[in-house]
Amino acid sequence: MNNFKMIIQYDGTRYSGWQKQGNTDNTIQGKLETVLKKMTGEDIEVHGSGRTDAGVHALGQVANFKSDTIKSTEEILSYLNEYLPLDIRVLSVDIASPRFHARLNACKKHYRYTIDNRKTAGVFLRKYMTRSTEKYDIDDMEKAASYLIGEHDFKSFCDNKRMKKSTVRTIEKIEISDNDGILTMDFYGNGFLYHMVRILTGTLLNVGTGKIKPDDMKKIIDAKSREAAGFTAPPHGLMLVEVTY
Amino acid sequence: MNNFKMIIQYDGTRYSGWQKQGNTDNTIQGKLETVLKKMTGEDIEVHGSGRTDAGVHALGQVANFKSDTIKSTEEILSYLNEYLPLDIRVLSVDIASPRFHARLNACKKHYRYTIDNRKTAGVFLRKYMTRSTEKYDIDDMEKAASYLIGEHDFKSFCDNKRMKKSTVRTIEKIEISDNDGILTMDFYGNGFLYHMVRILTGTLLNVGTGKIKPDDMKKIIDAKSREAAGFTAPPHGLMLVEVTY
Repeated sequence: MNNFKMIIQYDGTRYSGWQKQGNTDNTIQGKLETVLKKMTGEDIEVHGSGRTDAGVHALGQVANFKSDTIKSTEEILSYLNEYLPLDIRVLSVDIASPRFHARLNACKKHYRYTIDNRKTAGVFLRKYMTRSTEKYDIDDMEKAASYLIGEHDFKSFCDNKRMKKSTVRTIEKIEISDNDGILTMDFYGNGFLYHMVRILTGTLLNVGTGKIKPDDMKKIIDAKSREAAGFTAPPHGLMLVEVTY
Repeated sequence: MNNFKMIIQYDGTRYSGWQKQGNTDNTIQGKLETVLKKMTGEDIEVHGSGRTDAGVHALGQVANFKSDTIKSTEEILSYLNEYLPLDIRVLSVDIASPRFHARLNACKKHYRYTIDNRKTAGVFLRKYMTRSTEKYDIDDMEKAASYLIGEHDFKSFCDNKRMKKSTVRTIEKIEISDNDGILTMDFYGNGFLYHMVRILTGTLLNVGTGKIKPDDMKKIIDAKSREAAGFTAPPHGLMLVEVTY
C-alpha cells in the first residue's frame, strides 16, 4: 500500500467547502474520494491539510490518501483530472513516506484575502475577491496587524464556541498591500482556527475604516472572546495559497 | 443633447454577444440600452466599436450614445454600474465631441487570444482561456504570422460569405508568446472581419502543430477562400483588449 500526496487547486464557489458532509457530495473531499473510488474500487479517505469553508478557494491545497493501486502517479494524475469537474484540478501526485499526513505534518500555511477596492469592480476575477468601496488606512491596519504576530491565544478570532482544544497559534507574518486598488492581506502561520483568517481580515478591515483603533488589538486578543473582534469577512475573497511541510 | 463615450468591460460567457438581437435581450448592447432607458426614459441606441461574438470577452470595449440627460458623467457611471449585472462593468463615461462614433472613428483594435497549454489546466481563469495540451512550435507560428502583417485582402479569414463590403484590412502587429504554458496571441489592426481573429488564431495553431506549413500562409491569403484557412478557434479564449481612436 502506498501513501500518495496531492496538490489540489479549486474554485470553491459552488462547493460546500473541503470537508465531506454525510451523503451530500458537494465538497472537494467528496469529489476526490468519489473519483478515487471509481479508479481503484477501494473506499479511500482523503486527508486534507485542513478544511476550507464553503466558498473558499485554494491555489495549493495538500492532501494525502492510501491505496493499493498499481497505477503510476502520472496515471493517477491523468485519471483524476479526466473525471474531476473543471473547477477542481490536481496539480501533482507523488508517493510520500508511509507516515506522511497532510494535516498532522503541516508546518506552515499561507492564506490570502483579496478585496477589490477599485472605483469600478473588475469583471474577470470577481468571484475571487470581495467587493468594497470603503476607504482603508493601510498604515493603521499594519500597526494593528503587528499585535497579532507571534504566539497568542487566538480564541477571540475563533467561531467555534465549543472548541475544547488549544486555541494558541503562531502567526509568523501578515503582509498588507494595495496595488492600484486591489487590497491583499497575506497571512502566514503554523495553523488557523475555524474562521480565524476571515475574522482577522474583518477585524483589520474594521481598523482600516477607523471603527477599531490599532492599539485596541491587544485588548481584543486578551478578551479571549469572539465578541471582542470584528466581523467575519465573506468566504469568496479567501484563498489557501500554500501549505509547507 | 450630449454624446457620451463609455469604456466597458465584460465577461461574455453567458451572453449572445455584443449586438442586440430583436427581442432577446441577452446581449451586452441590449443590457446597456435597457439600463440607459430606465435612467433617461429615452430610447437610446448604444454604438459599440464593433460586435464581439457570443462568448467573447472585453477588457476595454468602447461605445457611444446620445442623450438629453442632465445627469453628470459621474452619475451616469454610478447608475449604470448599480443596475448592470456584475459581469458587465462600465469603467468610464465621458462627454465626447458630437461627431464621435465608436465604430466609425476606431483607428486600431487590439485583441488577445489565450490558450492554457500547461500540463494541468488552471482553475481560476478557465473561462477566459481555451484549453489545449497539444505542442505548438512558436517559431513556426511567428514565421506564419509575419505573412499576415500589412494590408491584405483577408477574405480567407472571414466567415461571412455574403460580405459585400471590402475585406481588405491592415494588421499592424501579431505578438505570440508562451509564458510557462500560457500561450497568448496579440493581434493589432485597423479592423477585423467576422470571426477573423478566431480564424487567424485557428490557422496559426494549425501551423504550430505542423498541420499547415508557415510558408503556406501566402497561398492561404491569396486563395481568398474561407476553406483555405484553418479552424475557427472557440470564442471564450478571445478578449477585445483595447480600441484606439
